[in-house]
Amino acid sequence: MELEKTVKVGVIGFGTVGAGVVSCILENGDMICGRTGIRLKTCQIADIDISRDRGIALPDGVLTTDVSGLIENSDIVVELVGGTTKAKEFILEALSKGKPVVTANKALLAEHGEELFAAAQASDANIYYEASVAGGIPIIKALREGFVANRIEKIVGILNGTCNYILTKMEDDNAPFDAVLKEAQELGYAESDPSFDIDGIDTAHKASILASLAYGEWFGMKPVLTEGIRDLKLCDIRFASQLGYRIKMLGIIKQSDGDIELRVHPALLQRNRILADVSGVFNAVMIKANPVGETLFYGRGAGRDATASAVAADIIDAALNLQFGSHRRVPAFRIGRQFKSLLDHSEIKSRYYLRLEVVDRPGVVAAVSSILGKNEVSISSFLQAESEDREAKYASLLILTHLANEGALRKSVEEMSDLECVKDKPVILRIEDI
Amino acid sequence: MELEKTVKVGVIGFGTVGAGVVSCILENGDMICGRTGIRLKTCQIADIDISRDRGIALPDGVLTTDVSGLIENSDIVVELVGGTTKAKEFILEALSKGKPVVTANKALLAEHGEELFAAAQASDANIYYEASVAGGIPIIKALREGFVANRIEKIVGILNGTCNYILTKMEDDNAPFDAVLKEAQELGYAESDPSFDIDGIDTAHKASILASLAYGEWFGMKPVLTEGIRDLKLCDIRFASQLGYRIKMLGIIKQSDGDIELRVHPALLQRNRILADVSGVFNAVMIKANPVGETLFYGRGAGRDATASAVAADIIDAALNLQFGSHRRVPAFRIGRQFKSLLDHSEIKSRYYLRLEVVDRPGVVAAVSSILGKNEVSISSFLQAESEDREAKYASLLILTHLANEGALRKSVEEMSDLECVKDKPVILRIEDI
Repeated sequence: MELEKTVKVGVIGFGTVGAGVVSCILENGDMICGRTGIRLKTCQIADIDISRDRGIALPDGVLTTDVSGLIENSDIVVELVGGTTKAKEFILEALSKGKPVVTANKALLAEHGEELFAAAQASDANIYYEASVAGGIPIIKALREGFVANRIEKIVGILNGTCNYILTKMEDDNAPFDAVLKEAQELGYAESDPSFDIDGIDTAHKASILASLAYGEWFGMKPVLTEGIRDLKLCDIRFASQLGYRIKMLGIIKQSDGDIELRVHPALLQRNRILADVSGVFNAVMIKANPVGETLFYGRGAGRDATASAVAADIIDAALNLQFGSHRRVPAFRIGRQFKSLLDHSEIKSRYYLRLEVVDRPGVVAAVSSILGKNEVSISSFLQAESEDREAKYASLLILTHLANEGALRKSVEEMSDLECVKDKPVILRIEDI
Repeated sequence: MELEKTVKVGVIGFGTVGAGVVSCILENGDMICGRTGIRLKTCQIADIDISRDRGIALPDGVLTTDVSGLIENSDIVVELVGGTTKAKEFILEALSKGKPVVTANKALLAEHGEELFAAAQASDANIYYEASVAGGIPIIKALREGFVANRIEKIVGILNGTCNYILTKMEDDNAPFDAVLKEAQELGYAESDPSFDIDGIDTAHKASILASLAYGEWFGMKPVLTEGIRDLKLCDIRFASQLGYRIKMLGIIKQSDGDIELRVHPALLQRNRILADVSGVFNAVMIKANPVGETLFYGRGAGRDATASAVAADIIDAALNLQFGSHRRVPAFRIGRQFKSLLDHSEIKSRYYLRLEVVDRPGVVAAVSSILGKNEVSISSFLQAESEDREAKYASLLILTHLANEGALRKSVEEMSDLECVKDKPVILRIEDI
């Protein structure tokens, strides 16, 4: 029988996830100890509000408002306050005292990762952040350890449960964006200010972290092409469906001949691909790599319990490293650039879906297709959709392209906008062939 | 910059997977070193045949037939010879010399795991076996580390690519088992003696390993209910499809109130579940656990490259543990029983699909349903399928049951077989509700 080692865990932030982590340690602590020999003890929990009842019985003295005291008393510090100001201070303070830190804070990592990981290295402690991407799915461990011998060719992820819930509902219920968002807010699947989720910022945070892990350089948020789902029209979901596609909000990281694309936007996925079947609040990450080939990881991307699972796994990893004195065994982040260049957004290559509202008269198709031809954008399929309004003077023209250059595509669309027969701004969506 | 450490890797078995591992180290070695600080050096490769060209340029002296010499010279020993005799000797010899062992040998682990892990513990070395289950999918790491804080409620896996290829082809091409098996053999997806795969033994090996990891006791092969796909009829695939199901070969591990079921058999899965969409040679494992909820892992379950990815990841894990002196950080296997009892096969609870060939006359349905009722098997749906042969005197009666006891179901079917109106042996398939 291996010896049991008690490790003192201090949790900063006793909100939903904090309560989930503390519950998990209380309920599954004996089992965890049986599996690992580590006895986790939640020694202190810090929060501004230490009076509210979270439904968890705690011994006196565990709850505190004194974060510095908690850091001092803990072997491992868990940061679950969120945000990028206080959280950063707490993490830096813990690291400066040589305490390993576990965090689920993707915004903080994506925006200040470089500084935090430098601090971790200087302190010879470590930061663990499995819960920061795709919640309960152990994707950081898979990417960094499971696929350590692989060249990453592509990562395509459904990384935001709110967006995926909204898109699933729009398609299933044939309901417009605004109505579904309102319902999601009532159900607690979307925040009262939903912009972080629906404008793609949260997905971009996660995509940036995954890209950095895959390619060994800290990217931050600046290079990520980020478009949200706020303006997505129900008719495009329906047209996509008729064409055999489903629209998903994706984080896309691609490498080709050493060039990397880093982007976040809604995209059309072929309906017969597994990623297209991921519905509701679930997340999934597809990784294509050499030699492993195509893989996919699926699970709950957020919420108290799924996040608690990932945080607890990190706590155990940190505890084992304390026990074995191997705390830099897998560094939080290792610099080692594994790509040539990061492509400018205009250099991205994709297939595209275009929807133009056009005057229904001869010559329109010729005008539009000649613009595409001139810009070397090749058409893979052309469809004039029947209007639902029989009196309508306009028709929807749907164009799917072969692989094209984003710059050339945008130039084409600008030229089309100038055509007298084209009404409204053309809708551009990318098609993701996995 | 972290220091570089060179680790000598000895590979026993230079077949398809062995060549894949050696290639992976050669091609991705610089990148692996950039990521981990570990410089892998394939110091020796042992095989009976050291003259055949595998298309890999190796320095003189690397190829050898002397396994003991290889073990002596290596920091880490990789066993890829397969089988349960020589492979076991090699592993025990390496462990006795304190060398960590990486293996992909599921048959050996499932049948002799207890002895091998005891030897690993006694030697204070370790056995790494990510490649033994689901090939390139890092499922062992996910289960043992990613979900270390979780109570495992259910594992349902498509764990054998040969079976999944055959079932996919039977459905897609409307072709009978024998024809598809022959084609699979010609394509190299099935062995010339396919019984290990199609009779479920390979799936049972893998399911047994996963169950042991999940519940902390080494199960071996004996308790696994194992049924293959050899007798599966095309008509049942078609009927299942009409009813909204797809038949998949599954490894199923379930826990309910502390009781465990361990079984391997073809089963009907609802077509709208992601697992039902896993086609061809791909593998997938669904894990339901508390607190993480439902997760799924998908990828190539076999083949040179996917297996090489998993073996290489284990080599790095072992190498990091050598570097940090943390070689028992995550033991190969840790005893710690986390269940009450292992259910006898007759105590299993499942939903069932029954097909009876019956004489097409009044009273048959009443006779059959009264037998089920008497045995407390509740019917969820009843369908008399139209015969494709209009002259046929027999009709196919399809019965789907609610959750029922396997013993009661088998007793019912025995009684039905005695009915004069029932021809042939009734077909019993289980329905897996995920």
